[in-house]
Amino acid sequence: MDMKKVNSLDFTEFVSVFRNVVERCPLVAAAVWSHRPFSGLEDLENHFFAFIDALPKSGQEGILRCHPDLAGRDVLMGRLSEESRREQSHAGLTSLKTHDRLRLLHLNQEYRKRFGFPFVVAALLSDRATVFQELARRLHCQPESELRTALDEVKKIIHLRLIDLLDSHYFGVE
Amino acid sequence: MDMKKVNSLDFTEFVSVFRNVVERCPLVAAAVWSHRPFSGLEDLENHFFAFIDALPKSGQEGILRCHPDLAGRDVLMGRLSEESRREQSHAGLTSLKTHDRLRLLHLNQEYRKRFGFPFVVAALLSDRATVFQELARRLHCQPESELRTALDEVKKIIHLRLIDLLDSHYFGVE
Repeated sequence: MDMKKVNSLDFTEFVSVFRNVVERCPLVAAAVWSHRPFSGLEDLENHFFAFIDALPKSGQEGILRCHPDLAGRDVLMGRLSEESRREQSHAGLTSLKTHDRLRLLHLNQEYRKRFGFPFVVAALLSDRATVFQELARRLHCQPESELRTALDEVKKIIHLRLIDLLDSHYFGVE
Repeated sequence: MDMKKVNSLDFTEFVSVFRNVVERCPLVAAAVWSHRPFSGLEDLENHFFAFIDALPKSGQEGILRCHPDLAGRDVLMGRLSEESRREQSHAGLTSLKTHDRLRLLHLNQEYRKRFGFPFVVAALLSDRATVFQELARRLHCQPESELRTALDEVKKIIHLRLIDLLDSHYFGVE
């Protein structure tokens, strides 16, 4: 889909296409539509970012809380969004051995308890080992800086999902 | 569920219970959890309202765009949320005769075209005749005041859905 097509979508169509650019938050796509026409990928994604940046802290935490745990219950129950399933699968998180899955479960629980939101990482840019390392490292960060780190990961996910949805050729991505 | 129970929920449980208090916007419940403990229904619903009030105009329009058309395609396709199905059914909108359905379809289209979001009304407080009347009337309102009217309807829906989810006895509602 090129930007001319994107700019021609009515809001129902737009939300249908971009609903999960922010995981389980179709509201963000529904808000971004107000800012059409978009001049390109960067313009479009900046509106997704701006929505998140403008939220109060509770809203930013809310964005994170809409994400599933990595290799968590939603994976086991087959309740992941298609995008999340693909990303977690890429990082080898949908096929963990029991030992690793239990370790990740434990680390996720510690993380959720400390910060009040799940551990979010752009899994498409990670592999299994990096995910474990990062989770163990970020678990000890300060809450304020960890919120910023986690939102930066959300923005990487947004960027990658938008590229995937849009005509990659049009944006010079091969 | 009483408020003690509500205040004991972790964020996954809280979002699971309150995810559709704002139609198709689990983000709002996920954000509201940050403000626990809640002293009662009024406190809880005020946090839902405050989230919406703090959004920029595009975000408030986004909240409305997450709502289905009354008696629209989602009704025909069986894609309504359980809450919305019950509310629209109460107002007699899920069993319209063809003539009325086409008239509503036409009015909805006019409304969406004029305001850039779907017509939202607290259907539990309405009947079929009132919905038609209100839609025909609001279609001619100014965009700024219509946005405020529509958000007031969202707040009525939030109030009714919260009462439904919480222990009515606890709040003295019979």
